[in-house]
Amino acid sequence: MIENHLTYRPLQLEDLELLLAWRSNPDIYKHFRNQKSALTWSDHLSWFGSRPIDRHDYIIEYNGRRVGSVNLTQDSYVGVFIGEVDLWGEGIATEAVNWVCQRHSREKYFAEIHEDNIGSKQLFEKCGFTKHECVDEWIIYQLDD
Amino acid sequence: MIENHLTYRPLQLEDLELLLAWRSNPDIYKHFRNQKSALTWSDHLSWFGSRPIDRHDYIIEYNGRRVGSVNLTQDSYVGVFIGEVDLWGEGIATEAVNWVCQRHSREKYFAEIHEDNIGSKQLFEKCGFTKHECVDEWIIYQLDD
Repeated sequence: MIENHLTYRPLQLEDLELLLAWRSNPDIYKHFRNQKSALTWSDHLSWFGSRPIDRHDYIIEYNGRRVGSVNLTQDSYVGVFIGEVDLWGEGIATEAVNWVCQRHSREKYFAEIHEDNIGSKQLFEKCGFTKHECVDEWIIYQLDD
Repeated sequence: MIENHLTYRPLQLEDLELLLAWRSNPDIYKHFRNQKSALTWSDHLSWFGSRPIDRHDYIIEYNGRRVGSVNLTQDSYVGVFIGEVDLWGEGIATEAVNWVCQRHSREKYFAEIHEDNIGSKQLFEKCGFTKHECVDEWIIYQLDD
């Protein structure tokens, strides 16, 4: 069972170089709504330092190494990506979304996914999210606790 | 001067997650001769553990953070890439190639660059390398010490 190999811990300063590298990979950021190119270090640091206190970012560790990130925003939006591209399709992101929703008690959880992002749609549907509304090409998924 | 902001140190185990992330970015590995997709962790570890003793891999640090890697192989081939994509064009790779050639005394240095990789061709020419021969679409550059 893959969940026995996964651990989660809050994102820290020492993770920022790796997070920047993952988030500067076009195979990863092409799924992000507000990012069209590689990040700058200064923007990345500013983002880290200005996060609201009720936003939670975690590093996903698989067999002791860092492989991705899962987060829950102040508005209860869940985000996840696996930075180690070769691990896509192993179910790690699904486990991480389930974990972060159990970790934080919110009335509802949301996810915003591009209509062409089949992998993420399947992932959140596996976690019990259902389509809530569409805004342009973006689908808002919802999960009631 | 950008060189005042650069330091170099041997690649260590603790750098391998970041190196994997950089080397799994298609904007980076598209220039590598023997890599057509993201790396696996096990192949990456095997590569690290089986390097010849006269191959040298260094991490490039810019203002104290890790931004890329430069190496010199047992056959005196020089390789370099800047993993932090936003820093491309700043002259860091040029500095790193000059540094690694000064650090290790070899009779000749080589670089193998795809004919379409204009940025790398300019970089190595700035460092004094000249075209030595062509093998298919790859150009071998040479620098005499």
